[in-house]
Amino acid sequence: MKVHVDLCLIPVGVGVSVGDYIAECQNVLREAGLEYQLHAYGTNIEGEWDQVMAAIKRCHERVHAMGAPRISSSVKLGTRTDREQTLQDKIDSVESKLDQ
Amino acid sequence: MKVHVDLCLIPVGVGVSVGDYIAECQNVLREAGLEYQLHAYGTNIEGEWDQVMAAIKRCHERVHAMGAPRISSSVKLGTRTDREQTLQDKIDSVESKLDQ
Amino acid sequence: MKVHVDLCLIPVGVGVSVGDYIAECQNVLREAGLEYQLHAYGTNIEGEWDQVMAAIKRCHERVHAMGAPRISSSVKLGTRTDREQTLQDKIDSVESKLDQ
Amino acid sequence: MKVHVDLCLIPVGVGVSVGDYIAECQNVLREAGLEYQLHAYGTNIEGEWDQVMAAIKRCHERVHAMGAPRISSSVKLGTRTDREQTLQDKIDSVESKLDQ
Repeated sequence: MKVHVDLCLIPVGVGVSVGDYIAECQNVLREAGLEYQLHAYGTNIEGEWDQVMAAIKRCHERVHAMGAPRISSSVKLGTRTDREQTLQDKIDSVESKLDQ
Repeated sequence: MKVHVDLCLIPVGVGVSVGDYIAECQNVLREAGLEYQLHAYGTNIEGEWDQVMAAIKRCHERVHAMGAPRISSSVKLGTRTDREQTLQDKIDSVESKLDQ
Repeated sequence: MKVHVDLCLIPVGVGVSVGDYIAECQNVLREAGLEYQLHAYGTNIEGEWDQVMAAIKRCHERVHAMGAPRISSSVKLGTRTDREQTLQDKIDSVESKLDQ
Repeated sequence: MKVHVDLCLIPVGVGVSVGDYIAECQNVLREAGLEYQLHAYGTNIEGEWDQVMAAIKRCHERVHAMGAPRISSSVKLGTRTDREQTLQDKIDSVESKLDQ
């Protein structure tokens, strides 16, 4: 089962600057060989369900290992059985409908 | 790694009445032997990361099998390394601080 | 326009214990005269859109005033035009369908 | 109070193709004069709290007017008092820390 994910991980108890933790999550996703795209309030990921979920677990493990005592992630999980669709397809689908 | 989860699963493409699908997810969580609590905009779940994630995957699989062509779930994932805490502990912690 | 909300506010930069901040948000909601229900990963709120949104803004203002330099809230907003439904109706609708 | 928002609006009860509804929300944001950026699982928005919230309300109103009987939006709201930061600053902050 393919899944489209939007991951927003918030380390709690490490101050207001969380960029190092988010960058480490990008490394985890890259190492996992997943397709992903950082945006201003999270990261879009696509791949097989188990592979993506394993990567999200590693993100939590790594961020805890970096010293964050508490993490709250907000994750969206999109699956569909009617057809294949990439992350870029979703963006293209909306942009094709915008007023010119 | 223990995790606290808030799961809000939305079947898309099956009309406005989604109660049957949410009820089936409650069945999945019960069958998995997880602690969970339905609320008005989702379900709180606690357990071991892998066990909880397997249950969420089964929820998507079952809801697709019931006929929903598309699902978008919104999931919160809370982990902490500083101490053990149950779902009820979190509620008690806030309620103990409320103005009397 | 009536709205059903699930609010999960996370103060960032104030350590791992966030109960005082969440309790203050409960006070804000009570003062606003809104219907609300704390659960283990957020608070369900129902009311008129503008009144609920004004209360969420006050939650951010109060939590900043208590010393939190950064806040990230995760909010779900449910509206419908087909019929009236309370927060409790949503829970009852699912529970009535559960396996006995 | 400035706010960074991530908005993911899901029309329920109108089938699986939701691109027209999301495109209309992009029109609402453009008409409101807000900074926004579509991504594959939502739209990032920045602006003054009241102006952004008014636009999100208009998105719900327009999508209902287009025929969707039910909407569930998932919204993240980020505010901070310690410093000014744009949406692009957030992306740059993470990207500057990535392994080369």
